[in-house]
Amino acid sequence: MARLFCYLTAMALTILALPVRAEDGYDLWLRYAPAGQARGTDISAHARAISAQGDSATMASAKQELQRAVTSMTGHAPALTTEPTAGSLWLATPGSAPAIPVSLKGLGAEGYAIRSIDHAGQPITLIAANSDIGILHGIFHWLRLAQTGASLDGLDIRSAPRIGLRLLNHWDNLDGTVERGYAGQSIWDWWRLPDYKGPRYTDYARANASIGINGTVLNNVNAKAESLSAPYIAKAAALADIFRPYGIKVYLSVKWTAPMELDGLKTADPLDPKVAAWWKAKTDEIYRAIPDFGGFLVKANSEGQPGPQDYQRTHADGANMLAAAVKLHGGIVMWRAFVYAHDNPDDRAKQAYDDFKPLDGKFADNVMVQVKNGAIDFQPREPFHPLFGAMTKTPLMMEFQITKEYLGQSTHLTYLGPLFKETLDADTYAKGKGSTIAKIIDGSLDGHRLTGIAGVANIGIDRDWSGSIFNQADWYAFGRLAWNPDLSAEAIAREWTAMTFSPDPRLIDPVVAMMMGSREAAVDYMTPLGLAHLMATGHHYGPAPWVSELARPEWNPVYYHKADADGIGFDRTKSGSNAISQYAPAIARRLADPATTPESELLWFHHLPWDYRLKSGETLWDGLVHRYDRGVAYVAGMQRTWESLRPLVDPERFAQTEAFLAIQHREAQWWRDASIAYFQSINHLPLPEGAQAPAHDLNWYKARSFPYAPGHN
Amino acid sequence: MARLFCYLTAMALTILALPVRAEDGYDLWLRYAPAGQARGTDISAHARAISAQGDSATMASAKQELQRAVTSMTGHAPALTTEPTAGSLWLATPGSAPAIPVSLKGLGAEGYAIRSIDHAGQPITLIAANSDIGILHGIFHWLRLAQTGASLDGLDIRSAPRIGLRLLNHWDNLDGTVERGYAGQSIWDWWRLPDYKGPRYTDYARANASIGINGTVLNNVNAKAESLSAPYIAKAAALADIFRPYGIKVYLSVKWTAPMELDGLKTADPLDPKVAAWWKAKTDEIYRAIPDFGGFLVKANSEGQPGPQDYQRTHADGANMLAAAVKLHGGIVMWRAFVYAHDNPDDRAKQAYDDFKPLDGKFADNVMVQVKNGAIDFQPREPFHPLFGAMTKTPLMMEFQITKEYLGQSTHLTYLGPLFKETLDADTYAKGKGSTIAKIIDGSLDGHRLTGIAGVANIGIDRDWSGSIFNQADWYAFGRLAWNPDLSAEAIAREWTAMTFSPDPRLIDPVVAMMMGSREAAVDYMTPLGLAHLMATGHHYGPAPWVSELARPEWNPVYYHKADADGIGFDRTKSGSNAISQYAPAIARRLADPATTPESELLWFHHLPWDYRLKSGETLWDGLVHRYDRGVAYVAGMQRTWESLRPLVDPERFAQTEAFLAIQHREAQWWRDASIAYFQSINHLPLPEGAQAPAHDLNWYKARSFPYAPGHN
Repeated sequence: MARLFCYLTAMALTILALPVRAEDGYDLWLRYAPAGQARGTDISAHARAISAQGDSATMASAKQELQRAVTSMTGHAPALTTEPTAGSLWLATPGSAPAIPVSLKGLGAEGYAIRSIDHAGQPITLIAANSDIGILHGIFHWLRLAQTGASLDGLDIRSAPRIGLRLLNHWDNLDGTVERGYAGQSIWDWWRLPDYKGPRYTDYARANASIGINGTVLNNVNAKAESLSAPYIAKAAALADIFRPYGIKVYLSVKWTAPMELDGLKTADPLDPKVAAWWKAKTDEIYRAIPDFGGFLVKANSEGQPGPQDYQRTHADGANMLAAAVKLHGGIVMWRAFVYAHDNPDDRAKQAYDDFKPLDGKFADNVMVQVKNGAIDFQPREPFHPLFGAMTKTPLMMEFQITKEYLGQSTHLTYLGPLFKETLDADTYAKGKGSTIAKIIDGSLDGHRLTGIAGVANIGIDRDWSGSIFNQADWYAFGRLAWNPDLSAEAIAREWTAMTFSPDPRLIDPVVAMMMGSREAAVDYMTPLGLAHLMATGHHYGPAPWVSELARPEWNPVYYHKADADGIGFDRTKSGSNAISQYAPAIARRLADPATTPESELLWFHHLPWDYRLKSGETLWDGLVHRYDRGVAYVAGMQRTWESLRPLVDPERFAQTEAFLAIQHREAQWWRDASIAYFQSINHLPLPEGAQAPAHDLNWYKARSFPYAPGHN
Repeated sequence: MARLFCYLTAMALTILALPVRAEDGYDLWLRYAPAGQARGTDISAHARAISAQGDSATMASAKQELQRAVTSMTGHAPALTTEPTAGSLWLATPGSAPAIPVSLKGLGAEGYAIRSIDHAGQPITLIAANSDIGILHGIFHWLRLAQTGASLDGLDIRSAPRIGLRLLNHWDNLDGTVERGYAGQSIWDWWRLPDYKGPRYTDYARANASIGINGTVLNNVNAKAESLSAPYIAKAAALADIFRPYGIKVYLSVKWTAPMELDGLKTADPLDPKVAAWWKAKTDEIYRAIPDFGGFLVKANSEGQPGPQDYQRTHADGANMLAAAVKLHGGIVMWRAFVYAHDNPDDRAKQAYDDFKPLDGKFADNVMVQVKNGAIDFQPREPFHPLFGAMTKTPLMMEFQITKEYLGQSTHLTYLGPLFKETLDADTYAKGKGSTIAKIIDGSLDGHRLTGIAGVANIGIDRDWSGSIFNQADWYAFGRLAWNPDLSAEAIAREWTAMTFSPDPRLIDPVVAMMMGSREAAVDYMTPLGLAHLMATGHHYGPAPWVSELARPEWNPVYYHKADADGIGFDRTKSGSNAISQYAPAIARRLADPATTPESELLWFHHLPWDYRLKSGETLWDGLVHRYDRGVAYVAGMQRTWESLRPLVDPERFAQTEAFLAIQHREAQWWRDASIAYFQSINHLPLPEGAQAPAHDLNWYKARSFPYAPGHN
């Protein structure tokens, strides 16, 4: 016994002495950190065994995830049983366990119920669903409870996704670059697929399944025809095989002229029978390799991409031709409403509405129109897109941008939860008060069965996936809101922080507070009061409100702010572009008058004199400057908060965030100073009392150039 | 006691149950895997403590590495003491420990001695050196012994590097791409430097220091002027600060026209005083940020790069102007001899010699001329470069290519140790028999003090650094041979295999056997019998011996093989380009006659009829085909060997190599079939008996295209 004791002592010391695995962010919110003795015992008591009968790949993944997680959190590996036993997690579907003591009605194919029950006198936790995928979602819910310190007793949870298609859009190119990617190259190793399938693909699927994402568009909407060639179909199929057990379908972006480029057709006219036949045959080829292929995403007649309008056909003609090809296989077409630049518009913000509103009712029933949250392009703040509420006969799919092209890219901490929520909660008044965008995209307002939401991924090959630890929160928040748009951004931030760092409230409270104000801070230091699109050309990194010489008017920041000696802002009322008429009358009336327009959107809708009085009583100019300063000050505050958390965060992740906050603070100051220097050169107004002059003159800011900025296509 | 026992039992079980860290290759040959009980005890007994007095950053790194390694291998953390104690590793320099019982003479600034000694009656292991860097090299030697299962008793080792500058050349671009990079993007996060300094930079330095590499050229020889701008100097300085404790200096590639591009000078003429003054000022600026900056690497007047010849000046004029700028700071200039393409040459292989031989003796004493191992471009096999032995008054620096542009890129297992050794051991006869290239580059043949060797890095952001586990061996072998060119490729492969996989001879013997024949197999299936440069245009991926229509003759594979109905090969004898006259007479005589030319170089030097009889008695054509088949068969054999090792290798690394060997086998067959189909279209000869016809016709091979092949600039 003494020898055994010594042996075990030695072993314990041996193992304790091993270097701890660096917190490099790879594990995302699935860290399953050791829970401590008390909590570990609690978790163990609820996971003594994993009881399940199914043996599908999905069920195997669910069991494996539970084993890995519980073992890592508690140090005790749960047993595997087929019948539920005391303290077990019982994974039950109608197919594997006929007598489930909970109703599965309303849970659909992906939802689940979790209930603490007595089973033959034994306390167990039932995770029940209509399908194995539902079970997988359920175990991730239970693991979220376990990781965040929630009670595991008396559970009675029912959850099903509100939105049917919850997709990531990867703007990943076949050469490994990522358009608007700030986290390194694409995680798709196209070159070595389908032969080499590294472990990262599985971890990608796990992460997505854990937040309910059920589809992924693999390639950039600015697509290459080769994505549909046989070798690339085989590569996509290899990924689909890996993702399938996690309930994630694969979709592809297509280039409109693929039939011409790949097979020498003379036209891509959607009404040409040869073109339709080509797409039919190509679709059949894809479905032979990927039987559950999801469908196509199309960017057509936008920013130089070809499309049906090149053949005097409508977007609906194009979408419906593709829809017919995928229909038999159960596939869908997602047709993007992000179109601009046919002609110089009177107002770029109006074009999508003008092009698509007349097509409402003309799309096949397996077509969705995918609409960005705002009418311009993923700005720090935009009013909601006027197509929401305007196309009641067409299922509209939301397109958010998770990658922060305009919100600080890889280094600024600007949590997007509040941005997503602002759009989802926006009331379109399409069918009276309460016609929120969430109700439009979940289909409830207009009675659509086909529903969807997409997020442009912020994922790359960087070890931490998203370019920074805090950018992971945006991926997480997108998934959680796609499942349930009613969640609050703050509750999501709390979950994420608890799982990513620690459930210690000394850490959670200040981190969540930082996160919650961070997006508004970016609005303040970049584009306050409804300004937009003042970023530098091409890479959109940093301020360049002075740019005025690009070929098309709407490429220039001056087009958006319209600042002159007298005032600033884009008049979208009747006296201007009248874009406000695209909204429901109740909204349009409010927006017609600056006094009833939310100040956060003031200069989006109105051109106002510099001495216009804000609600605070200060002039528009003074209010602008004060907002710039407030944004910079918020970042300084985040730096102080983070510094105070040093004892509670591992050195590696602490150092990354510390470095990035320093960059953010410097760049917030740069935005503020460059913007003020420029606007002062136009309005010649003094700064409000106490405001610092910019550190450099305007020419200094204009001269800065960044030829190697990432993410630029 | 019983409670403590239980607690420890629980703890041991807890920790044992944690998932084992995946073998993703990140740790390279510094895995420090648990050594097992017997060996662990043995290692522990020799590392009970680490005894050292110095507290420099280098010494701290040495102690940290020892602690990490010994703890990981044995489970016991060594104590830290200042004075040597029983069983300690005693790290001693003259500065920290005046009475060192071993001579340090001849060890220089980087060498070390390791000796098992009695110190005041105690058995200890002394690691002694003239400098802390020497200590660091010494501890890595000791750790190599510990990891490979070597005896740790009775040690009496003295080691100092034979070559002074042992450098990696990164062909990394400022936009994150890597020219000829097959392991993902650059590990230099230029965009977020100097603010964010992730842990990978330190691990890069550790890995290099462990094999004696002491310098790194950060950016591509096809340089951008901005590399010398103030922001990029600050970024390079941040890296230099990280590398400095590991004895690694930073160097930069420069673009010749940087003075014009960055500061608007009207010329880059090296003899213009304003140009010289610009470089002087720029150099001073760099040294203010990086006091130990190593110097410049220059690719001038080659492949479109600007250079002094644009101003009717010589390479020496250019190099010496730069050399004067860095001289005061102790810096050097490395001037590449890889020049071609001014005019259409009669033989590209002759140009470097023709350009540089006349300049011998004209370079300043802090200039080295950097010469590729062969006269063309890193082919699977090339005769050694004729400049070796021809420029006795100039220190020549060897340039090897570790990244396998022409040897299977990321997926073929083609261990480069034998290739490096073949060149190093080649006898130039410059000063009679025994005038090996190793003796030229280590300075001993011509009495040069300034000596150097460079390897074009195969490093990228891929988790395994080099694109594959086995590619790591090439990085390792380069470093080991740079330190000591007399090591055998096989001994290096054994070390690497033991550290990377396991010291188990059941694994080492077959793996090393695979590795040792693998490069010859690539020669066989790609370019047997002295053929060269038959790769596809641009990306150099796959076979394209038929290409004949590129603008310059020497861009075309047909230029290199010169196959016609009558025969094949490049006549470099007197009846041809007479390139053989660039070699020493003893060699030239041998190469003048096919019968005395090594068959491995036969078609490099001779154009021979298809029915020329090889030493085996078979015709040249039959011999070619047999070699193609032998290469393919070798790869099949590696697949069988690897499969037999499944029980001895972790699943993750096993699967990667398994997948890559399958790719290699398919591509070896492709090389073989495409080459035979093409040559048959020219010679119309039947295949030798038993040889399989190619799987497709020639047009099929010609039609293959790979627009997204990686590494292409």
